[in-house]
Amino acid sequence: MQKKIMLYDTTLRDGTQGEQVNLSAEDKLKVAHRLDEMGITYIEGGWPGSNPKDARFFSMARSVSFKNAKLTAFGSTRRFGVTPENDPSIQAILEAETPAVTLFGKTWDLHATEILGVTLEQNLEMIEDTVRYLKKEGREVIYDAEHFFDGYKNNPEYTMKTIAAAQAGGADIMVLCDTNGGTLTHELKAIMDAALPQISLPVGIHVHDDCGLSVANSIMAVLCGASMVQGTINGYGERCGNVDLLAVIGNLQLKMGYQCIPCENMKNLTDLSRFISEVANVPPVNQRPFVGKSAFAHKGGVHVSAILKNSRAYEHIDPETVGNRRRVLVSDLSGKSNIEYKTREMDIKLGEAASDSAKIVNIVKSLEDKGYQFEAAEGSLELLIKKITGQFREPFALESLRVTMEKDGDNDSTSQATIKISVGDEKEITAAEGDGPVNAIDNALRKALNGFFPVIGEMKLVDFQVRVIEGADGTGAKVRVRIESRDSNEIWSTVGVSENIIEASWQALVDSVQYKLLKEEKNRA
Amino acid sequence: MQKKIMLYDTTLRDGTQGEQVNLSAEDKLKVAHRLDEMGITYIEGGWPGSNPKDARFFSMARSVSFKNAKLTAFGSTRRFGVTPENDPSIQAILEAETPAVTLFGKTWDLHATEILGVTLEQNLEMIEDTVRYLKKEGREVIYDAEHFFDGYKNNPEYTMKTIAAAQAGGADIMVLCDTNGGTLTHELKAIMDAALPQISLPVGIHVHDDCGLSVANSIMAVLCGASMVQGTINGYGERCGNVDLLAVIGNLQLKMGYQCIPCENMKNLTDLSRFISEVANVPPVNQRPFVGKSAFAHKGGVHVSAILKNSRAYEHIDPETVGNRRRVLVSDLSGKSNIEYKTREMDIKLGEAASDSAKIVNIVKSLEDKGYQFEAAEGSLELLIKKITGQFREPFALESLRVTMEKDGDNDSTSQATIKISVGDEKEITAAEGDGPVNAIDNALRKALNGFFPVIGEMKLVDFQVRVIEGADGTGAKVRVRIESRDSNEIWSTVGVSENIIEASWQALVDSVQYKLLKEEKNRA
Repeated sequence: MQKKIMLYDTTLRDGTQGEQVNLSAEDKLKVAHRLDEMGITYIEGGWPGSNPKDARFFSMARSVSFKNAKLTAFGSTRRFGVTPENDPSIQAILEAETPAVTLFGKTWDLHATEILGVTLEQNLEMIEDTVRYLKKEGREVIYDAEHFFDGYKNNPEYTMKTIAAAQAGGADIMVLCDTNGGTLTHELKAIMDAALPQISLPVGIHVHDDCGLSVANSIMAVLCGASMVQGTINGYGERCGNVDLLAVIGNLQLKMGYQCIPCENMKNLTDLSRFISEVANVPPVNQRPFVGKSAFAHKGGVHVSAILKNSRAYEHIDPETVGNRRRVLVSDLSGKSNIEYKTREMDIKLGEAASDSAKIVNIVKSLEDKGYQFEAAEGSLELLIKKITGQFREPFALESLRVTMEKDGDNDSTSQATIKISVGDEKEITAAEGDGPVNAIDNALRKALNGFFPVIGEMKLVDFQVRVIEGADGTGAKVRVRIESRDSNEIWSTVGVSENIIEASWQALVDSVQYKLLKEEKNRA
Repeated sequence: MQKKIMLYDTTLRDGTQGEQVNLSAEDKLKVAHRLDEMGITYIEGGWPGSNPKDARFFSMARSVSFKNAKLTAFGSTRRFGVTPENDPSIQAILEAETPAVTLFGKTWDLHATEILGVTLEQNLEMIEDTVRYLKKEGREVIYDAEHFFDGYKNNPEYTMKTIAAAQAGGADIMVLCDTNGGTLTHELKAIMDAALPQISLPVGIHVHDDCGLSVANSIMAVLCGASMVQGTINGYGERCGNVDLLAVIGNLQLKMGYQCIPCENMKNLTDLSRFISEVANVPPVNQRPFVGKSAFAHKGGVHVSAILKNSRAYEHIDPETVGNRRRVLVSDLSGKSNIEYKTREMDIKLGEAASDSAKIVNIVKSLEDKGYQFEAAEGSLELLIKKITGQFREPFALESLRVTMEKDGDNDSTSQATIKISVGDEKEITAAEGDGPVNAIDNALRKALNGFFPVIGEMKLVDFQVRVIEGADGTGAKVRVRIESRDSNEIWSTVGVSENIIEASWQALVDSVQYKLLKEEKNRA
């Protein structure tokens, strides 16, 4: 039988301590549902004593029943000088009404004396009687030994006394934390080997990525005997972040034979990563192990020609195992293999293959020189290839475009666009308003085209990104606009580049609409 | 004496195989200079046989003398059926005229037979005679044993035969590569322990981050006896990237007593990371260990109040050691400690401290709810706090703003802005053109203000970022604009939020100008 590892997710608490990670109480509930479906064992919902949002989350969560996960509320040992009964933040933990609670206590002598300002003995009492009180109140108590490894390096004897205090209080699980993320993998192993014989409870590990070692440290802890791993989805968290649970799952479950989540959920790892990134509104890290957009992206010509023969040549696992996919990038490092793979993927017929591929490679390289990037705008790339090979004719042409934006004093601004297009011999002129100039153009373009191509009513713009290409020219710099659009069965991306953000947006918008019309043509064919 | 580790940087070759990483030959030369100044031992400049850009880089580099680093040219063993003398890509390596060359050969039997399509014996000959030829031509030969660990797992005997062939040919350094990035740290140790006794040369390690273990694997290899680490700055590279040399340096040099670069250069690590990110035009990863913008950023209230007492409480090293800095973030997780730290940092006097801080926290939280983010816009935050506490009065007011953008057919678009402002009782109306609407507003605002505040002539906009806040509304979504400005002694960032990109840009521009005027006021005081 496979050894089971309990996963403990703290995206909703430690994760939101990461820079730019903000989740509303409603967002948190959405995330908790997804984590539950995924098969996560414990979900730390927040710190009810520290802010009203977390308290509100727990009050909403009370009416929810989770299929797999236990919800936990987080907090610290009681304050000095009060009993747990009289400590409002301990009471807030109880009011969260979760089956399990997670209590952190000071393990490093420096923290007890300098940060809390209590004696070493008083800290031990605060640990033991808070744990005992929460047990008496019927909670499962997960004890987070904050700064365990730093404490052990500084004063191993005292550190182990704090562990003994939590055990004496009745804790259920003992979590060893590398709170500052400064512990090296071989140090972690040496400390765990020395400490584990003195711990009679199941052990967990909680690490941060300040040395870039969080995944290695979590795996090492499991090899040393830990049966719980705490972390966050996408590695969000204070400073460099907590360990990324997705990478932990990928390694433990696919490569080491542990069971973290049900096997059938492995293929949802990539979706989960993207979902959390979207809810948190943090741009995804493309290089993220296992689930990143680039994790199985091949750019060098040698790599591409090899994976066409056998994908194991440059892939450590099959990307589909984790719901990711292989991508071949077209750039100035591309050889003909890249273009040929790509055109096959897009189902484009090349004429006399060698000369067509060479022509495409040249045009792509020269546009990339000007700031276009087709790696992330495959809709524009497909249109470009079809135009180059004479397989697509532009369905409409711009005659003229006027955009105005007006603002008076502190009032809201207004935006209008007037557009004139031609479709064959027919011309159409129309105008529209919008929330901003790009939205006004989008509305006007759809209005103008609607009579000719009603099918564009099915498509919708879902994302709009702007990136300044040359970092040094302020508002006069070139910008690249990337638009993501969708209809009921596909998402596609297009790109535009100009010194004028409106013009760059216009190019990407036109490509987006043309791509939709191209799809229709294919469907009719 | 400290043990010296040779650093081998492949940002210019393997790094550019990363998605969205593109460097011109001129960029590469700039990067090589910085790496040389930093004290990197070897700089791999490119693969001259694979693309004309790399060949051009080497021809430019010929006239450059590096202080510390040796430049290397990269390539593969000769093709089957030709001698090295007759293989154009081997000749291209020689034409690069570098003191050292890096040759990769197939170590994994699967690659020899399935990808190259040669027999195992033929592959050994290709390795041995290519190395011998390059040695005869007077080059130092660094041999990259591609897929060493995968090869060893599959067929250890054959793998070691390929190593023996490179040794027999006369290679100077033997680099063991985890090309696919799929090797776990304990597997890497076991394989190195078994293989090293059979290798008589200095050993290097080259790993990728597909399992999130690249830093741990590089450190483990050094502990096993490797004396060279290959990697890239910021971990750029194929798929999930190569190991990030900056994290390797941070750990080996600050925590393990090895010498990688001269001690006095440690404080330049953060600058190097940002420089490479800027040249490559890839947005920096804030969570990056040691050098990321968030690496020493504290958000949770408990963390902030603790580091005010002793920064070791939540920092594994002093950020200044690597040229980074401590940051306290203000967000909805902030307590009064965060605001008080921040105002002290900004040298703002709070009136009756408790009530001012509470008021500021509330306004910040409500604006962040609407999409503002002050973590990365400290100029706007300082203005906001000074406005809330009555320490800053807006120096000018907008009366009206009109922006137009016109485009006819395929011609370039034109943009114009008309602006009317008031300064006290005086009014000024003016107009300007620009490369796009935001640039036109920027130009018009400066023109209008110039007579009143000539000091704004000193400031310059250096970056302009746009981010869509709500992912699901396409061009009608809210956008956040962030502007970075500088004068001769400071860089500051400001933010604007609106559904209208022009309006959001306007807010950020106004804050940027007001911040400059605020600085002037402070200087005069």
